[in-house]
Amino acid sequence: MNILEEFRKLFYPKSVAIIGASNNPLKMGFQCVKSLVESGFQGEIYPVNPSTDKILGLKCYPNILSIPGEVDLAIIVVPVAGILQAFRECALKGVGGVVIITGGFKETGRKEGLKLQEELKKIADKAGIKVIGPNTFGMVNPHANLNASFTIPFSYLKKGEVAIVGQSGGVCHILAFQLHDEEIGFSKIIGVGNRCNVEFADLLEYLAEDSETRIIALHIEGVEDARRLMKVAREVVRKKPIIVYKVGVEESSKAVYSHTGSLAGKSEIYSSAFKQAGMILVGDCVEFTDTIKAFCFQKPPKGRRFAIVSKEAGPSIITIDTCIKGGLTLAEFSEKTIRKIEEIVPPYTIRSNPVDLAFILADYEKHVEVLKLVLSDENVDSMVYINIYNPELKPPVEEISRTAKENDKTVVACLIGFKDIQTLGKKEFEKYHIPTYPTPERAAKALINLTKYGEKLKK
Amino acid sequence: MNILEEFRKLFYPKSVAIIGASNNPLKMGFQCVKSLVESGFQGEIYPVNPSTDKILGLKCYPNILSIPGEVDLAIIVVPVAGILQAFRECALKGVGGVVIITGGFKETGRKEGLKLQEELKKIADKAGIKVIGPNTFGMVNPHANLNASFTIPFSYLKKGEVAIVGQSGGVCHILAFQLHDEEIGFSKIIGVGNRCNVEFADLLEYLAEDSETRIIALHIEGVEDARRLMKVAREVVRKKPIIVYKVGVEESSKAVYSHTGSLAGKSEIYSSAFKQAGMILVGDCVEFTDTIKAFCFQKPPKGRRFAIVSKEAGPSIITIDTCIKGGLTLAEFSEKTIRKIEEIVPPYTIRSNPVDLAFILADYEKHVEVLKLVLSDENVDSMVYINIYNPELKPPVEEISRTAKENDKTVVACLIGFKDIQTLGKKEFEKYHIPTYPTPERAAKALINLTKYGEKLKK
Repeated sequence: MNILEEFRKLFYPKSVAIIGASNNPLKMGFQCVKSLVESGFQGEIYPVNPSTDKILGLKCYPNILSIPGEVDLAIIVVPVAGILQAFRECALKGVGGVVIITGGFKETGRKEGLKLQEELKKIADKAGIKVIGPNTFGMVNPHANLNASFTIPFSYLKKGEVAIVGQSGGVCHILAFQLHDEEIGFSKIIGVGNRCNVEFADLLEYLAEDSETRIIALHIEGVEDARRLMKVAREVVRKKPIIVYKVGVEESSKAVYSHTGSLAGKSEIYSSAFKQAGMILVGDCVEFTDTIKAFCFQKPPKGRRFAIVSKEAGPSIITIDTCIKGGLTLAEFSEKTIRKIEEIVPPYTIRSNPVDLAFILADYEKHVEVLKLVLSDENVDSMVYINIYNPELKPPVEEISRTAKENDKTVVACLIGFKDIQTLGKKEFEKYHIPTYPTPERAAKALINLTKYGEKLKK
Repeated sequence: MNILEEFRKLFYPKSVAIIGASNNPLKMGFQCVKSLVESGFQGEIYPVNPSTDKILGLKCYPNILSIPGEVDLAIIVVPVAGILQAFRECALKGVGGVVIITGGFKETGRKEGLKLQEELKKIADKAGIKVIGPNTFGMVNPHANLNASFTIPFSYLKKGEVAIVGQSGGVCHILAFQLHDEEIGFSKIIGVGNRCNVEFADLLEYLAEDSETRIIALHIEGVEDARRLMKVAREVVRKKPIIVYKVGVEESSKAVYSHTGSLAGKSEIYSSAFKQAGMILVGDCVEFTDTIKAFCFQKPPKGRRFAIVSKEAGPSIITIDTCIKGGLTLAEFSEKTIRKIEEIVPPYTIRSNPVDLAFILADYEKHVEVLKLVLSDENVDSMVYINIYNPELKPPVEEISRTAKENDKTVVACLIGFKDIQTLGKKEFEKYHIPTYPTPERAAKALINLTKYGEKLKK
């Protein structure tokens, strides 16, 4: 059985049972049913609750075994005391995947919890059940209209190419909300929780083959089998970028363990291993979102040499600082480019790289000409375009996009302005797949991470 | 003459002349007149242009000397060739302040430019004229309805307590736009440009006395008299926080010089000197804005011991990581607090610090009780509140705010959600002066910077 087949019932079920379903809107057992309904799931939905007839108009069953048809996926939200029975019944019923939202396992730090989780794993492995969790918010597959989580708003996420695998529900939520606000869609969002028998490495192997996934984002607090993760990642990054946010330093290790039963480990060791495996490391949630967005919109550049074309010198300097610290190189334009730019841009402004747009901004032709010169220079791999967005003096977005594509160059933009004006510019640029950022550092870091992956692909 | 008096005509003029005013909306000479008009300036506005009768309905004068009344402030936007004559006439007219927007001086790196700037300085010093620029976007004083810049949208900024002094117009714009979007107002925004005879240190001395300024933000690329700046800053930080973003590493030093004629210098040397002087250093534009906002809304905590009350374990862990790296200490609750929290929060969740809200979120009373316990604990100086904002399950914002005030504790919040939902929560929290941030790192960094200033004040 290939890996897509192994995970088919989990991620593309034809029927889902919610064990611990509830009529109380404050309970997760209700929210899970509601999520499935709201996401427009096309298969059968079977709420399981021995003391209720109907939930959201759906017939309730006293247990999973009493459901007449087959059940591909079960979502378990019963209290921890009832977990073993519920899970054994899932195995008897022959489900292919289980999402265990219930907590109280390894993360408690108590023998009973650990034992319970081991017990679950034994049953799951024997029955060939893929388990997401325990101790998770759930998972979402927009391509299957499947919101198998207690987060009802995840029902409205768009289909797309980004897969998020997170140890923390909270971080998955931050990413999902922010990327959705950027109009980016998802292939899968998976909260792995304590990881019973589905590890980060397993999901990487799956997502590498998953035709709906093009970009993989990992949030990791701690892993047990780091060696295998690195080995798998090394293979996967050849096909798809893996962007990883490793959190949990020694001081937060107690909280990390109580969270999902993992050891945080030394962050430096992790970081260098991740880098060696070719993964793209990010330092915070903003960079995480920004980088994923960059990968959605642009191809990695062919090299490290960046150019800046900018209306604003101060933000250009910040961009240089940030890019240089991130390992990029300020491109040196060819003689020809310099000569031609000097014919267009007046003296006493910065012309060599960055190129200062200040005095030609009102001249559309010159604006375009400068951009074309920079983007077609053989010594340039990528460009950061910086401007205070002015709807009455529209920048030549289509020309930037076309020239960049023709010359195989990567472009990101920093657009400065009041939120509402900036949003106009953002729409204009992102229509042409140029990702925009409100500050120069954010644009620069996105470009740095694209470039790192480009360098990885060259090797 | 005290320093407020020295700068009075510059920042609180009764009349303003725009030398180089224009009727062409694409020219800065037009934009400057428009800015003054739009900002509702109550004094006289005198456009100066020998070949036009009226600009925006205002009578034009051939030169500043032909203006009948007194002129307190002149804004010069003529080409560099005409600058000396215009400036000499300003001195003859007896103006008190000049904003020179024109570029082409020291920043060109050419002898002529340097000489011209020195010439200007001589005339200015002799005539007692305070000069902002040359090579600047201008300056804004909302308290005087004075937008003395070419950026028309700055006319709509609110009056407030934040002063921005920036070497780069672009960075001033980023800060001003972002803070305005956060509904924060300004006391002054000053683009110092090449700094002819008004240095960062002069402005610090002025802003320390300026009753309209409570928070000072500096953007610095390079300074000539760093020693004096540090000396002045050491005094000023006892009264008002100075938040500084130093940019320009060696690689960008060429661009820094071409920008405003400054030497970037070694960033490590600057950083440690700034820190020693008690200034708060930030690392990027996002942290810059976030920190200013925190100072607008909250008092610095009395110490380094932070608590986390959170619905989300993953973001809590990130908060711990970030705060610890920033020099804070995870507070150890008193025995009493721990005992009482254990009565409220169920076992198997994180209760000691962070405190996990997940299982009591639907119980308003318990939610309040936990917050009160944490905020009144003697071992706690500050709190980060983290939640996925849910308008149907409103957090006890008023109680947080009141309890924090009663116990003299500092609070910042991280609210997670789709933009529109998050905005609802943001309004709710910020009504009670609790600053909110969309990611845990941003909330943590704002708290770190508040704490650093608190530590400074203790010394």
